[in-house]
Parts: sequence; structure tokens; C-alpha cells
Amino acid sequence: MTHPRLLLLGAGRSAASLIQYLLRHAPAEGWYLTVADANPAHLAPVLAAHSAYARAVPFDAADADALEARVAEADVVISMLPALLHPVVARACLRHRRHLATASYVGPDIQALHAAAAAAGLTFLMECGLDPGLDHMSAVRALADIRARGGRVTAFRSYCGGLLAPAAEAGNPWKYKFTWNPRNVVLAGQGGPARYLDRGLLRFIPYQHLFARTEAVAVPGHGDFEGYANRDSLSYQGPYGLADVPTILRGTLRRPGYCAAWQALVRLGLTDDGTRLGNAETVSWAALLEAFLPASLVPGLPLPVRVAAYLGLAPEGEEMGRLNWLGLFSDQHPVGHADATPAQLLERLLTEKWQLGPHDHDLVVMQHVFDYELAGRAHRRTASLVVTGTDATHTAMSQTVGLPLGMAVRRLARGLVEQRGVVIPVDASLYEPILDELAAEYGIAFHEEETGQ
Amino acid sequence: MTHPRLLLLGAGRSAASLIQYLLRHAPAEGWYLTVADANPAHLAPVLAAHSAYARAVPFDAADADALEARVAEADVVISMLPALLHPVVARACLRHRRHLATASYVGPDIQALHAAAAAAGLTFLMECGLDPGLDHMSAVRALADIRARGGRVTAFRSYCGGLLAPAAEAGNPWKYKFTWNPRNVVLAGQGGPARYLDRGLLRFIPYQHLFARTEAVAVPGHGDFEGYANRDSLSYQGPYGLADVPTILRGTLRRPGYCAAWQALVRLGLTDDGTRLGNAETVSWAALLEAFLPASLVPGLPLPVRVAAYLGLAPEGEEMGRLNWLGLFSDQHPVGHADATPAQLLERLLTEKWQLGPHDHDLVVMQHVFDYELAGRAHRRTASLVVTGTDATHTAMSQTVGLPLGMAVRRLARGLVEQRGVVIPVDASLYEPILDELAAEYGIAFHEEETGQ
Repeated sequence: MTHPRLLLLGAGRSAASLIQYLLRHAPAEGWYLTVADANPAHLAPVLAAHSAYARAVPFDAADADALEARVAEADVVISMLPALLHPVVARACLRHRRHLATASYVGPDIQALHAAAAAAGLTFLMECGLDPGLDHMSAVRALADIRARGGRVTAFRSYCGGLLAPAAEAGNPWKYKFTWNPRNVVLAGQGGPARYLDRGLLRFIPYQHLFARTEAVAVPGHGDFEGYANRDSLSYQGPYGLADVPTILRGTLRRPGYCAAWQALVRLGLTDDGTRLGNAETVSWAALLEAFLPASLVPGLPLPVRVAAYLGLAPEGEEMGRLNWLGLFSDQHPVGHADATPAQLLERLLTEKWQLGPHDHDLVVMQHVFDYELAGRAHRRTASLVVTGTDATHTAMSQTVGLPLGMAVRRLARGLVEQRGVVIPVDASLYEPILDELAAEYGIAFHEEETGQ
Repeated sequence: MTHPRLLLLGAGRSAASLIQYLLRHAPAEGWYLTVADANPAHLAPVLAAHSAYARAVPFDAADADALEARVAEADVVISMLPALLHPVVARACLRHRRHLATASYVGPDIQALHAAAAAAGLTFLMECGLDPGLDHMSAVRALADIRARGGRVTAFRSYCGGLLAPAAEAGNPWKYKFTWNPRNVVLAGQGGPARYLDRGLLRFIPYQHLFARTEAVAVPGHGDFEGYANRDSLSYQGPYGLADVPTILRGTLRRPGYCAAWQALVRLGLTDDGTRLGNAETVSWAALLEAFLPASLVPGLPLPVRVAAYLGLAPEGEEMGRLNWLGLFSDQHPVGHADATPAQLLERLLTEKWQLGPHDHDLVVMQHVFDYELAGRAHRRTASLVVTGTDATHTAMSQTVGLPLGMAVRRLARGLVEQRGVVIPVDASLYEPILDELAAEYGIAFHEEETGQ
């Protein structure tokens, strides 16, 4: 392609670093970038110095004609829209024969387009952000290296979390704020039992135990974390070439104590998204919580004491402290949303309590642990990535999602991606240059440690 | 209508008593009955003696043209099809201006047709079976009587269960077999937290506690039961006229002990329908159960001991006895269904273990408890219905669902139902004659007891 026209659909907060990357490279690459967003006004200051090769246009993702017209006038489409819109975008790309790149999972609707995209000579490059994205690239590179040295992998554990730099954790006993979709955080784990492989045995963790069965994870220089299992660790067997590896676990990282307190919210029923409660907007959190307790609990005692007794927690313990910090026991704190599900009310409360401040720095942490045998000896390689956000715009989340995606787009627009159809970045021709560029240009690199006999 | 043509859609096991009722009255009422079913062969012996006014025809519910043609040639349509098909049937009835009667809940899709049906002079008579159906009729009659005597109702509790006659309970520690849709039994309570009203306070019970928060219910002459709360007891406030009543609870009955053992299945994760497990058909129940236990439990101990420890149950206790009776700890017992959800596997197992035998008699139990004040005194009225099945065809379930529906149809076909639109049987003009006919002709009557100061 000469002078490729790039179309970026959706320019929310998490797209900031991606846009910065695309603008940085547009002049040299000969790109013309169109950023299509529901509210393009906020892009004016960003794009002002780049008007020769970039513009922002208003875009309504629900307007099928607008999507059709925008895709028609592009060569490569990048979607940062909500993942459920990707099948619609992908079908438009297929009709107009445009390449596509996203940071989202390949769902069944996208996978179904593989043969048609391949036949049309198109590349639908999916899972090119952080998780999914960087996790694939870094894990597959390390696995290839271990195998090239003759190692036989016996266990693969991988964790990732979007967390906070230590200063931003202060005063917040959860040590967590939202740097990504709050609804997904509230509903985490509700798709069905988590599934993983432990020494050859399949293991399931039902939702009601998920946040009680955590593992301790230490990242040198960054302290302690805890990981809870992600939905289906076995889905990585194929893409990572782990068919014969008896232990495979993927998990999400939180700071220690988060999961036990979240488990208390689960047990109270506050993460349920199944039924509207018929509540008034003005009902207090304390009154709502009361409704979730059995009537038989001694009614004379204060609400926090009864909640602690119900959950089998120490009344003055850390879990109760975290619940109290959220304002759950306050008569004065209205739920603020009429006829909502418990999960909707909780999301609203957490969005208020866990809002990233203008001076907060976020932290992205990823760690892979590979156990392997080499020359009759047991070895362990630990690969850890820690990225601190630059500021409230160029968060670690925005960088680690947007930069790999931007780099993948650059290679796609240059014609350097040979694979066709629906593709994820598990081929060395794609991940090697991206991992190298991340390390060399942005200092985003994994720190590896080897231990063994 | 003279010589009304009745169309019955769906003639599964639960329709046996309805068909018997319709055939009994067809000659005197001048009806011609068409029974449309996927497998009409089994109806031949039933209809043989009635060929002058009844026939069976093959019918595929997925065939829209066939539905259209059948509805066109009827005057009153009765649907015993799965409830999710009722909106399609109702829209066909609307197009051809036919009355409709079912034993299913009014869902939002049906409710949306109310005005159109009323304008077309049609009656869509819904919720005319057992539960919903007889529960409405009997509760509203008793409430009307209490109010007519000057009583002020302070609490309404209502329970219903499809259970077993004592002889059929023998040897089965759950004292339960399926007399209705097994899938609904396995998924009971999963739609979201149960909601009820307790002395003016709204109460929610999250799914993970539902089967642990039961109430004891005694039915004179029939022993003890336990009730767990149904989804939304508050939805009965309007239809029953209970707006000012501070305690409203609807529940489902089981024999004592069932709920604690079911709670163990819930806690193990075996009722989850969210994710396919990727299991092989031949994997044993013991191996599957193993996968739901944490890896950290002492692996040397036998599986049942570890399950009991995990659930905090006595290893030799009743709950573990019920799980063991199902064969959950057997190495020899294959789950028999590849790549299934836990709920699908459990349904398959239970369908095998809880199958109603040819000589089993089922039992339908319903009980309403009304607390009310009259002349400054507290009173309690208890209205209990117990129906024992005649045989494996004319079960108590088939009778209590089919007979009220048949009686409602008879009144509809005679032109005695004046209400138009979507109607449920909470008007005396409809429920009085039906309750009277059930008592006089079939001995299906509530036994009432009054206690007071």
C-alpha cells in the first residue's frame, strides 16, 4: 500500500497512547489517519498539530450506513469500539476488502469469518493489545526459547492485572481503582466456572469460590499480589502449543486482601446481575444490605456486626474494613439508581470510590512462570513486566494496550504481515519486532529470572 | 359459539388429564377437538372411542405455516407447548381472531398483546393450571372471604410442590422424582435473587444461599415439608390485592433434607449452566467431582471425605448420604454427555435417578397461610390442598394442571368469560365455578383450618 488510509473507530480514554503512536509514525509512513468517535471534540487539541495527515470525524457506531461509508474510504480499519461491535465492523471490512486490527478477543462471530477473510486476501489481526496481546507475544517467545534450548515445559502459569502505582494506593484499602471497563470488573468470573489444568488434572472453580481460591504472586521489586483464575486457561493450549503441558493456569492479579473482601461482596449477593431489585434511588446502602441478610439474625445488633456474623468474618477484620470504606453500612449513602440489579448498584458505588484521580499513576503487571526440565534438571523461568502510567491520559493501561496494537497496524499497513484470515500474534514474524520495538523505544520489557538445580 | 372447534397444541405426558376432561365434555358441549402433537401415534388408543368428535394430527411447532393453518380452523386454541412458544401461538391467534388458553405464566411478550387482543374481542386466558393457576384461584377466594368478614390481612405465605406419595418415596433419600420439567428443577432459583416481603422489609436471597434459608411447613395428615423462596413474591401484590400486606412469601415445597443436600450440589458448582466443561462422555462422576475440589485438599483421603471436609458436612451425615445415593462418588458411573455444562450433566444423572416408576403415585401439595386481624384479634387461616396421582398417566400433576385449564376452556367456549385481552383467573366469575367443579366432580378441594385468640 502506498499512502495507506487508516481508520480508527472509537477513541475513548484507552486509545490515547494508540493515537499518539499513530500520529508519531504517520508522516514517515505516509498514512492518513481518520479518527471516528462519538465525541470528536476532545480530539481537536490532540490532532491540531497534525492536520496535514489526520482528522477527527463524528461517528455513531449504531449507524450502519456511516460505518459502511467510513470503512469504504479506508485501507486498514482499527477498532477500539466495545468488543460486541466487532463482528459488525469485521463484516463491513469483508464487504469492502479492508484489513482489520483490534485489541479484543476472537469471539465465535469473528472466528466464523476466518475462511472468507483469508479467501479475500484480508488480515483480521485480533488480540493485539495487553491481555489479550502482549501476554501471547511474550509467553510464546519465552516458550520458543525454552524449547530451542531443549527444555521440556511442565507448567505454565500467567497472571496479569491493571493496578495502581504505590502512591495511588494510599488511603484505599482495596489498593484498586478502575483503569478499564468497570462493568467487566464487577461481573468478573460470572460466565461459568473457571477451568484450568493442575498436574494433568482438570480443575473447575465455581464462581462462588473463585475469589476464595487465590494464589500468592510475588514480583521482584514490586511486592506481593494475589491471583484468581481466569475463565478458561485451557483455551491457550492450542495457540501456545501447550498440548502436553500438565499444568496451565491463567489468572488476574490484585493486591493482597482484595479477593477476600470481594468474596464477601459475592457472598452477600451484591455482584448478581440477574434481577432488578425494584429499589428506590434514595434507599440507603445500609437498608439495601439489610435486605440481603436473613431475617433470623439477631435484629438488635448493629448492621456491620450482623454482616460479619453472617459472613463468618471478624467484625474488626480487614474484609469488614474494606466493606466499610465503600460506605456499605451508611444510612446516609443512597444507592442512587432506581430499579437496578445489585451489580449495577455496586458498579455505580465503585465508580465513585475507585475513580482514578488526576495525579494517580496506574500500574500494569504481568508475570509468566514457566517450569521446565532440561538435561534432567528442574528449572523455573519467571518473566515479569511492570509498567507505570505516565499520567492520567497515557496510563500504563493505555500504553500497553495501544502501543502493541499500533505496532501491529504499522506492520500490517507496510504489507509485512503475510498471514491471512483471522490472526492472533503468536507467530514470531509478528511478535518479535513488536516486542523489540516496545523494549527499545518505550522501555516496555520483561524482566526474566532463571532458577534451577 | 355453536359447535366450537377446539385445538390443543402439544399433548405430552402432562396433557393426559386435560385431554380426558375435554373428551368427557365434548359430546354434551358440541365440541370438535383436534389434538396436534409431534408424535400423535400415542393418542390413537385414547381417541379411538371418540372419533366422532376428536382426532389427532401430526404437528411440528417449528412449522409456521402449519401453525397458521391449524389456528385458522379452530375457535379456541389451547397450548400445552413449551412456554417459550406461546408468544408465536398468541400472535397467530390474534391474526385469526381466536381465543387462547394456557397453563403458563404471562411473560412480557404475551402481556404486550393485551390491548390488541382486547380490541379484537379476544380472551387470552393464561395461568390456568396448577402453579400458576389453582394457586391464584384458591388464594384470591380465601382473601376475598377474609376481607368480606372484615378481616385485615397481615401476612400471606403460599407454598406449592410436585412431590411423591409416601410409597413412592421409599428407598429414595431425596424423596423426590420428576413430575415436571427436569431442567427447570436443576436451574431453579438461578434467575437472580429471590425477593419477598417480611414485616414491611424487602428481603433478597442470593442464589448461593437460597437452599440454605428454608422454612418448615407442616400439612396436617401429610407430614413435614420445607419451603424455599420463589423468585419474586412481590409480583403477586397487584393481582392478589396485597398492596398493604407487610409479609408476602411464595415458596416451593420439598421433603425435609432435600434443600440442604441440593445446597451441597450448588456449592460444589454442579448446578452451573454457564460453561461447557469440555468433558468426555466417559469420564466418571468421581473424576468430575474431583475437578471441582481445590487441589490443596489432602489428596490421600477418599473423595467423599474430602468433599465432606470441603463443604463442612459430616462425612456420615444425611447430605453426604443423598449425594452418595446419586452415584456422585462412583468411579464406574460415566457422566454420559460430552462437552456439557455441569447443569446438563446433573440433569442427565437426576433424570436417571429420579424417574417416576410405572407404579409410583405422585403428590401435589399446596398450602396458603393467611394471618389476619379481625375485631382486634390475630387469626390464622391455613388452606391446604393435597392431591395424589391416580396412576403414572393421570398423575396429580397432570390432573391439577389439566383439569382447571379444561374447565377454563369450557367456560370460554360457552361464552361465559366476559373479560377480554390477557386475563389470569383472579376474578370470582372465573375461579368460583372452577373451584366448585374441582371439589364436586374430582374431590380436589382445599382443607381449611382456622386458629385464633
